[in-house]
Amino acid sequence: MRLDPPPTTPESEHRRRIGAVQEAMKREGFKLLIAYADCWRTANVRYFTDFRPVDGVHTIAQAVIALPAESDPTLFTGDGCLDYAASETAFDVAELEHLPLYLRRHLNADGRVALAGEEQIPVGLHRTIAEAIAPAPLVASNLLAKIKAVKSPWELEQLRHAAVLTDLGMEAVQQAVSTAGQVTERQLARAADVAMINAGADTPAYLSMVQAGPRSAFSLALPTNRVLERGDLVLTDIGARYGNYVADGGRGFVYGPPSGQAREIIDAAADAVEAGLAAARPGISAADLNGAIQAVLIERGYAEFSGEARGRGTGHGTGMDPEEELPWIGPTDHTVIEQGSVFTLKATINHPQVGGLRTERIVHLGATGLELLDTFPMRNFW
Amino acid sequence: MRLDPPPTTPESEHRRRIGAVQEAMKREGFKLLIAYADCWRTANVRYFTDFRPVDGVHTIAQAVIALPAESDPTLFTGDGCLDYAASETAFDVAELEHLPLYLRRHLNADGRVALAGEEQIPVGLHRTIAEAIAPAPLVASNLLAKIKAVKSPWELEQLRHAAVLTDLGMEAVQQAVSTAGQVTERQLARAADVAMINAGADTPAYLSMVQAGPRSAFSLALPTNRVLERGDLVLTDIGARYGNYVADGGRGFVYGPPSGQAREIIDAAADAVEAGLAAARPGISAADLNGAIQAVLIERGYAEFSGEARGRGTGHGTGMDPEEELPWIGPTDHTVIEQGSVFTLKATINHPQVGGLRTERIVHLGATGLELLDTFPMRNFW
Repeated sequence: MRLDPPPTTPESEHRRRIGAVQEAMKREGFKLLIAYADCWRTANVRYFTDFRPVDGVHTIAQAVIALPAESDPTLFTGDGCLDYAASETAFDVAELEHLPLYLRRHLNADGRVALAGEEQIPVGLHRTIAEAIAPAPLVASNLLAKIKAVKSPWELEQLRHAAVLTDLGMEAVQQAVSTAGQVTERQLARAADVAMINAGADTPAYLSMVQAGPRSAFSLALPTNRVLERGDLVLTDIGARYGNYVADGGRGFVYGPPSGQAREIIDAAADAVEAGLAAARPGISAADLNGAIQAVLIERGYAEFSGEARGRGTGHGTGMDPEEELPWIGPTDHTVIEQGSVFTLKATINHPQVGGLRTERIVHLGATGLELLDTFPMRNFW
Repeated sequence: MRLDPPPTTPESEHRRRIGAVQEAMKREGFKLLIAYADCWRTANVRYFTDFRPVDGVHTIAQAVIALPAESDPTLFTGDGCLDYAASETAFDVAELEHLPLYLRRHLNADGRVALAGEEQIPVGLHRTIAEAIAPAPLVASNLLAKIKAVKSPWELEQLRHAAVLTDLGMEAVQQAVSTAGQVTERQLARAADVAMINAGADTPAYLSMVQAGPRSAFSLALPTNRVLERGDLVLTDIGARYGNYVADGGRGFVYGPPSGQAREIIDAAADAVEAGLAAARPGISAADLNGAIQAVLIERGYAEFSGEARGRGTGHGTGMDPEEELPWIGPTDHTVIEQGSVFTLKATINHPQVGGLRTERIVHLGATGLELLDTFPMRNFW
């Protein structure tokens, strides 16, 4: 199969988003929002325009949306990208080095400024902005994160496509594993990447992880030249980018019949995620949903061998970036998960002797219940 | 053809690099070097270890090497990556949140600390480090950049492979363009990506750029669904990653016979780069090399339509990141280019009516002269 190429974002989507963000700004008393993105985590800027900064150094890899509470946004980026940026947005485009001038002109002394993307903004740009708006404070805010978390029907459609492409990546891994002669982790990762691209993905959403045998005891690692051996547990964590949207998925595979311990790991992770899928209903809090998954992992004896069992969280928002800020499905967030959120639910087990896997699903919490965006099976062994 | 999978870095390489950096630190009076990298620009950390942070949020996407002038480095990264990190390095590995403790223990009041990666370090981590070492100053330094710029014979071998893979990506574009029925920019980019991966690349080095017709008038842009038309100039900028090393290349193509003006653009860019290749001899300064390329572009009448003609630089270092800090081939750097440097030489022309292209070669300046790492032709039309 091959998906149609991704569409550009309808102007009505951008308008709706800007309206929602401006409303929140007024509620919270912000005169201006600074949304920062780089070429790698792009959602804070792509939420307002299809422009994406290009990989590189200096300002071409950076972009800022400056959104006043009462008027249209301006997109700031590097000199080398201005004409491209102008082709992607109907709003004003300006050079990043003119941001201080813009800020001085748009603010008076009582104007509070919200910053989205504080975690990633480089120290130099942060300093420039803070100096330009002084004495007004630059306030790290999750106002944009909260709005981004709830997906529109159009966004959901893009995410469904990204999830289908991710399923096809998993299928490519499965085929290569089940017929494996001398296949390496690296070859499995590349098989997934090529399968996703050939089916219509723009790129992998992130560097595909494939870890076999002893390396499946690591929670996160990049693939090596290690050749699969019979009985190996294989941890995968892969996702596809379709236009502006991405999916994030994890599955385990066993090459050859699994040992009893490997089988227990596969079942525990699948059962834990299934407990999460069953619990995920409108009105549930992030902490309660996290608890449903965490409890199964602890009960099966993996308290020591699972980040999710240790309280590191069992899921996260997904949309334009593979990991978005909200929702965060973890033990300390007692707020109700917003209807319309798209997020992952996951259980990772990494046993130093047996190996491990991550089972990670991508789901949409709708008004009437949970929609599973991916469909690939959670128990894979032969 | 298909390259062998990339090797891991020999321990002797890491040892040699650490020795060279420590020597420079002593010369410049630094007690400690902090080298920051994230999952996207990785060279500052990968120079010392094959570990690379994974794409994601928070600390798993960040890594720091702390290198004292007199003892072995410690690698700091997120909790979820510690066991993986330990498998990739013989040096100590610790959690990023323990970096302040490490810094307080390793510094006394007179210790100056060098920072590599100031352009990309997020404001929060920078603040944490600065507070931990206070009153010692945190000094942005290019000492690591200068050492990284000169490639060892082993590094050069990896870069040659990355350049071969990039040539194969260009070949895939050429084939698709010359047989084009209804091919889009996006399809050309994906053809290059898949060709590079199938021939042995780990990934594209960066998001492949393909811009056709009116969009070739942009210097930097990502591909769209625009269908190629006869006579279109096609700007490409693509590179392959092979293990830890990348290439960066640009070529123009014309689908169908070029107009006279398009032909002049193709020739001017190729002639400008050829002037650079001819000028690049041991002992030349970056500014003089830049001048050789810039002069041709101005002389042919593209002063208005070329970033390189406007003095924005005509090349940059390449190695583990597609764009490394040094050398920078631009008008204001009058230092001699170090022998052993690997860098690009480029000429971009973007004419608003005619379109344009970027011709970008990757080269190695050896003791006896210039080695061209890529070989794909610079004039491509049919």
